[in-house]
Amino acid sequence: MSTPTSPHTLASTPTFLQKLARPADTKLVLLVLDGLGGLPREAGGRTELETARTPNLDRLAAEGQTGLSMPVGAGVTPGSGPGHLALFGYDPAATDIGRGALSALGLGLALGPGDLAARLNFCTLDEHGRVADRRAGRIATSVNRALVERLNGIQVPGMRIEFTTESQHRAVMIVRGPGLDAAVRETDPQATGAPPIDPEPLRPQAARTSEVLRAVLAAARGLLRSQSPANFVLMRGYAGPPQLEGLDDLYGLRPACLATYPMYKGLARAAGMEVVEGLESPDDQTRALADLWADHDFFFVHHKAPDARGEDGDFEGKAAAIEAMDAHVPAIRALAPDVVAATGDHSTPAVLRQHSWHPVPFLLWGAAVLRDGAPAFGERACGAGALGVFPARSIMALMLAHGGRLAKFGA
Amino acid sequence: MSTPTSPHTLASTPTFLQKLARPADTKLVLLVLDGLGGLPREAGGRTELETARTPNLDRLAAEGQTGLSMPVGAGVTPGSGPGHLALFGYDPAATDIGRGALSALGLGLALGPGDLAARLNFCTLDEHGRVADRRAGRIATSVNRALVERLNGIQVPGMRIEFTTESQHRAVMIVRGPGLDAAVRETDPQATGAPPIDPEPLRPQAARTSEVLRAVLAAARGLLRSQSPANFVLMRGYAGPPQLEGLDDLYGLRPACLATYPMYKGLARAAGMEVVEGLESPDDQTRALADLWADHDFFFVHHKAPDARGEDGDFEGKAAAIEAMDAHVPAIRALAPDVVAATGDHSTPAVLRQHSWHPVPFLLWGAAVLRDGAPAFGERACGAGALGVFPARSIMALMLAHGGRLAKFGA
Repeated sequence: MSTPTSPHTLASTPTFLQKLARPADTKLVLLVLDGLGGLPREAGGRTELETARTPNLDRLAAEGQTGLSMPVGAGVTPGSGPGHLALFGYDPAATDIGRGALSALGLGLALGPGDLAARLNFCTLDEHGRVADRRAGRIATSVNRALVERLNGIQVPGMRIEFTTESQHRAVMIVRGPGLDAAVRETDPQATGAPPIDPEPLRPQAARTSEVLRAVLAAARGLLRSQSPANFVLMRGYAGPPQLEGLDDLYGLRPACLATYPMYKGLARAAGMEVVEGLESPDDQTRALADLWADHDFFFVHHKAPDARGEDGDFEGKAAAIEAMDAHVPAIRALAPDVVAATGDHSTPAVLRQHSWHPVPFLLWGAAVLRDGAPAFGERACGAGALGVFPARSIMALMLAHGGRLAKFGA
Repeated sequence: MSTPTSPHTLASTPTFLQKLARPADTKLVLLVLDGLGGLPREAGGRTELETARTPNLDRLAAEGQTGLSMPVGAGVTPGSGPGHLALFGYDPAATDIGRGALSALGLGLALGPGDLAARLNFCTLDEHGRVADRRAGRIATSVNRALVERLNGIQVPGMRIEFTTESQHRAVMIVRGPGLDAAVRETDPQATGAPPIDPEPLRPQAARTSEVLRAVLAAARGLLRSQSPANFVLMRGYAGPPQLEGLDDLYGLRPACLATYPMYKGLARAAGMEVVEGLESPDDQTRALADLWADHDFFFVHHKAPDARGEDGDFEGKAAAIEAMDAHVPAIRALAPDVVAATGDHSTPAVLRQHSWHPVPFLLWGAAVLRDGAPAFGERACGAGALGVFPARSIMALMLAHGGRLAKFGA
């Protein structure tokens, strides 16, 4: 605790808050509109959220307190992993979920202690064994599935190896067995014209893992030799399961995740949440929220559509997606939650067609929230809110405190 | 870059500022209205401070700069110790004043280097020696005094042991002698039905302390055996004196404390302030401020009433207490201070009847302060102020700088 911190995160780390956590009979809802923040189409115009008609979110904002949440730091564009880790109260810069583990989580694959996940790219090797295309011409996902079926024939004594299609040239490998260690060199040369790199061990403990990966690659070379353009694979992002202390253990919560996409369910599971399976639409999610209300006290509700439309570059579609989410707010309020926080895991301006670094509109609602009189839920309205620009990872602390779940610090 | 830093505390730690400190012939006043921050009684209403007529504080705010000061971090409710440590410029999360030391400070007891303080609860043991009531039915303070008189007969060779009544079942023990070490197990089992815990040493250096405490407890058992319901004591919160470098040594200040309650005098003493004794009312404090004006340059003026009324749940009383403090502001201004800062050590909303995590209205006044045009001194007005939400522990840096007491950093 030697470095000075933000007024918000000054001491609000999970390890600090954990000591203050106390039980309370309160219900907390974290409503995440993925990629919520945006930008205007023309200079001086309105953002997607400012364009959308959101009477219910506006009312929560007017009755609550607002600000702009910063997922990682100024100028940093978060991926879904860091964006959600911050929302769950973890330090997204210090919590490293490897690419392989994130891909595995995203596919809903189980990744247990000691398991090793890696991200695979199908690639094209030329006749000299040098990488000619690191993405094998972005093969169709159906081709990927056929190749993955071949790879799943690979056997290495003492290990269980599982390949899973992600999409196009992307796949995931999970290795299960004793003595695995992620400190092995990545085989992707990150350039064409160079051969794949040998997965040599980067420390003595990784020698066995290196042998396993060499055996896998040798077998893959034989199995894929004739499958041009995808005649080999490159491996990177070796990772074990995320090492997080869950929200259940940290704060004594019984958290539930209501999400439709595997990635967010995986992140929630890593954070100690019980994940509701089989949800396919916002209607499903809202129904499940009511069904689970009695048995849980923290609810992570994740809506993917605003981000997806933002990445499509579909400004109107993103605004419409936000409006569709807004229509579900009354059903949440009808359950009489004690605390509601609504925000995104990052911004996805349709004009940029990608995640961005812009801080994200945020609102906090609850009986002990001091209203700041925000005129609406939007980028500019929230920017003038009482919370100012603040770190997303203090959202958990704010929710816990307003839910009566943190004891006094010091006498 | 694992912990995000605030623009305010980027480098404003005591050790950093200490190197910049330079003398100046300026007078700084830190006016603390304990528990200042509040909440409305009804949704959409005004807080205690917003309700109170405070023309003098409003004028300071209008002529100065405002913000909301965050004592510890988002969602963290500070006790008086951390709240004041932050106001004095220390990191409240990293500075651990043990419960025993804080109780000793609160009673105005001297706690020197090498001394050990502990918090005592009178408790009730059943016939099997198990704790039946951890608070001995909250005995009257007068009963406590009689029992403490008994305990003060305890002698341990080579040690001086002093028991002091706090209130009801609460007391403080101070042990003075060579080789004391606080790393001893607390004897309070924190539950009924279990026997008191043996004060075993938690590291070899604490062996002697453990022996002393065992001897004290054996003697106490005999002395209290017949004193049902308070037939024994539980010990916790072992602590030596706070290890702080004082504001005098850090910044070359001659700081004075004008407080009426022992707790705040003790905290001020720990921070290197000269404590004025015998003050019993705000009138006393204001008179003493004038009397001491020539001989000191930093004045900590502490008013307890807003917090006390807040803990009573007395909204009108808290507003009235704030108005009564406001009436003393002209006398402070008449002394021609160079810098005035006014805030609280934490919020105590009357509707919550306890300390809370809400950031606290703050104003800074002085010739070099850039006015932000705050319309009043209140939660919402300060929330829109130029300082935004900022860490309380940068208040000292702001006061020193505006008082011309910090040299340029670097060439």
